[in-house]
Amino acid sequence: MNYRMIKNVLGWILWFEAIFMLAPSVTAVVYGEWHELLFFLATMVICALLGLLCRLGKPRDTVLYAREGFVIVSLSWIVLSLFGALPFFLSGWIPNYIDALFETVSGFTTTGASILPAVEDLPRSLLMWRSFTNWLGGMGVLVFVMAFVPLSGGQNLHIMRAESTGPDVGKLVPRIKTTALILYSIYLGLTFILFVLLLFGDMTAFEALNTALASAGTGGFGVCNDSLASFSTYTQIVVTVFLFLFSINFACFYMILLGRLREAFNSELRAFLLVVLASVAVIALNIHSIYQNVGDAVRHAAFSVATVISTAGFATENFDLWPELSRTVLVLLMFVGACAGSTGGGIKISRIQILIRGAFNSIGDLIHPRRVKKVMLDKRPVDRTVVQATNVYMVWYLLIFVASVILISFDDHDLVTNFTAVVSSLNNIGPGLGKVGPAGNFAFFSIPSKLVLIFDMLAGRLELFPVLVLFAPSTWKR
Amino acid sequence: MNYRMIKNVLGWILWFEAIFMLAPSVTAVVYGEWHELLFFLATMVICALLGLLCRLGKPRDTVLYAREGFVIVSLSWIVLSLFGALPFFLSGWIPNYIDALFETVSGFTTTGASILPAVEDLPRSLLMWRSFTNWLGGMGVLVFVMAFVPLSGGQNLHIMRAESTGPDVGKLVPRIKTTALILYSIYLGLTFILFVLLLFGDMTAFEALNTALASAGTGGFGVCNDSLASFSTYTQIVVTVFLFLFSINFACFYMILLGRLREAFNSELRAFLLVVLASVAVIALNIHSIYQNVGDAVRHAAFSVATVISTAGFATENFDLWPELSRTVLVLLMFVGACAGSTGGGIKISRIQILIRGAFNSIGDLIHPRRVKKVMLDKRPVDRTVVQATNVYMVWYLLIFVASVILISFDDHDLVTNFTAVVSSLNNIGPGLGKVGPAGNFAFFSIPSKLVLIFDMLAGRLELFPVLVLFAPSTWKR
Repeated sequence: MNYRMIKNVLGWILWFEAIFMLAPSVTAVVYGEWHELLFFLATMVICALLGLLCRLGKPRDTVLYAREGFVIVSLSWIVLSLFGALPFFLSGWIPNYIDALFETVSGFTTTGASILPAVEDLPRSLLMWRSFTNWLGGMGVLVFVMAFVPLSGGQNLHIMRAESTGPDVGKLVPRIKTTALILYSIYLGLTFILFVLLLFGDMTAFEALNTALASAGTGGFGVCNDSLASFSTYTQIVVTVFLFLFSINFACFYMILLGRLREAFNSELRAFLLVVLASVAVIALNIHSIYQNVGDAVRHAAFSVATVISTAGFATENFDLWPELSRTVLVLLMFVGACAGSTGGGIKISRIQILIRGAFNSIGDLIHPRRVKKVMLDKRPVDRTVVQATNVYMVWYLLIFVASVILISFDDHDLVTNFTAVVSSLNNIGPGLGKVGPAGNFAFFSIPSKLVLIFDMLAGRLELFPVLVLFAPSTWKR
Repeated sequence: MNYRMIKNVLGWILWFEAIFMLAPSVTAVVYGEWHELLFFLATMVICALLGLLCRLGKPRDTVLYAREGFVIVSLSWIVLSLFGALPFFLSGWIPNYIDALFETVSGFTTTGASILPAVEDLPRSLLMWRSFTNWLGGMGVLVFVMAFVPLSGGQNLHIMRAESTGPDVGKLVPRIKTTALILYSIYLGLTFILFVLLLFGDMTAFEALNTALASAGTGGFGVCNDSLASFSTYTQIVVTVFLFLFSINFACFYMILLGRLREAFNSELRAFLLVVLASVAVIALNIHSIYQNVGDAVRHAAFSVATVISTAGFATENFDLWPELSRTVLVLLMFVGACAGSTGGGIKISRIQILIRGAFNSIGDLIHPRRVKKVMLDKRPVDRTVVQATNVYMVWYLLIFVASVILISFDDHDLVTNFTAVVSSLNNIGPGLGKVGPAGNFAFFSIPSKLVLIFDMLAGRLELFPVLVLFAPSTWKR
């Protein structure tokens, strides 16, 4: 294990955290929130100094292997969250540090679950910091760092693999740094377009900026107590469309920009569109008697599907009150999640495709034991190690899921609340059903339960393996 | 596909169904239930004649491959259920045929879920038939047939593999017929001991016989409206102990009889005992404030764990009213299920062991990509095809689970009811929580939902693959 190199990268991460906090600091200056500014600046100084300490002494050996990639990514996210929580805690707005950590992890992992009963009370600089963590976590913090810093000589594919979403991560262009830059440029561009479109609606500039950041990261932190419910139909439709866009693999946008449409509309994107259309249709039919007209039913159905499948977790209507079929479809979409390589969470469409195709092939293998059929995706065989990793992913997913539900059931809340709180955390969604429904929050859980859910959010965002590797004794051998 | 051979075996199955109905017919004579006797005899005649029709014309080719094994097993169970439902339907006690089929499938698959609100109203011959289907389904109907009939020249390992429980089925002795005879002798012996022990308690001979049959098959059909709640502590303790025994691989009893204790206490049995002890301890601690003393708490905890992990589904206390931790542990045990090669249902301990060990190995493989570690069980490597089949099993399990929950949610019952109704059917347990809790029944579901649950019960008992093979087009090619 290359400890020096890990320390070095963590130093960079702390420096970048200090830079990231410029955004809320500027907000604090603009709105004259001097009390909060003080604590943002204090945290920035702490991060800068600790970062300097980590970066002292250049590592002789800059080679990174897969295990260093995993460890760097998970430790970076833990460090980011631990220090990112300080402004909430130090300023006294979230007096319990575990609560502040929960809120920050929920932000970076783009979960959007909150322990705050009323966000409107919060100063604007802290709201800005919440939305900004959503945005940074969406595309990945290390991908951001890699776009600007030469981490090491070409070895950082391991880091990108460990932080990006989906079963198999490729490079858009041969150089990682360029790939990272392209991804962040598309991300920034789409976020900016969304921001401008929201300005044309009934949002103030501050609301539009925060909503754009939280939507782009599919995080779902809002700046109003009722999320997006009180905004106009125009605003809700714009957000719906962009949530679907941010659920798509960013490589697809790159292909579209290059005019390679056939490559853009790959098998995962087609499956995603099919799932979205089918779900919206079923829910709209199921709820249309509740609303005045079909248009409203379709709009609410589309918004709910967008918010759940993108794992953003905004709320307009309280879907906990809808009929059981709609609730069931939405709960299942929570597991499905977005496309690989998007900012969304969940299991991912392509992972489910690999699992289903493997399962169908296996029935054929039972009938014709001598024939072995490979899993195909976009007319290419999926690498056997990817298929295996996908199977193992599901097993670990279930193990973590079950262990989490048992652990938080010690708090003695109802089964639906416990179950969907874990679903929501592990898939980085935000709201669940029952007490953690769109109208509720996570404050009532005990500290141990909050720690379990913090673990779930991190494990979910980093897609299990980087976090699990931390617990393997052989990781830490030299 | 060897259609003639399949028809031939189905003929045997129909003849055996006629023979099986001797048990309720004798009961009808003993208790003077002439009306019911008439319909049992009518069904026997129908089965005998149809069986004769199937057995006309000897198949020239008696060779059976894996796919014939799967098809024979699933078609046999479907035929058994279709005709086994006739006495309930024809006698008018269950006026809807789908309801009668639900009850019969629930019996043969040892689920024990009922559409009857009050079983005490039923004539004793029909109660006897319900319990007897539990007993026959437990060890397997085709295993029974194979113990007495020479099906074909040594090819019937495929049939035994397809009907027996667990990820990997071995023979106790080289000859299948002898293996089947040994298994049924142990089964009969244990059932008889249980029957005698129950006679020493507060049960009548009829109650003791039915309870022994339903416990041995881990089916859980009772003859009293409140299941076993009103019987003495002695009776409940005896049933608890035997439910644990019937959850154990019958090969272990054979090893114990041969004095090979080390082989008997294999890794699966040790894991099973650990899960049982841990669950009883957690639940007893969690519920002890509800009961007067620790003894009662332990007894109720042990009974509930026994009834759930064996997937029998008897009820004493209504565990739906217990604290959330106990409810959660019990729901998870519903998935876990019993040992491979037992009469119990669920995913099976050894399958979960294979999945967990594979998952742990995979983390090591991530850290050291060049090293490939095999999954070990009892110090022997598990065959790679078994590991793969176990992974695929989980994927299909989840797919069927999800599809079933969506389909029955059209009925608009609550999530806990829908969820646990499918859990209960797919794992062959009986009661769930909510409306299908120990105090409820399945009558309120619509006909389409009942058909979904019938499919789930069959798929669960036959461990998915035999049923899935029926739907693969390539199965039916010549």
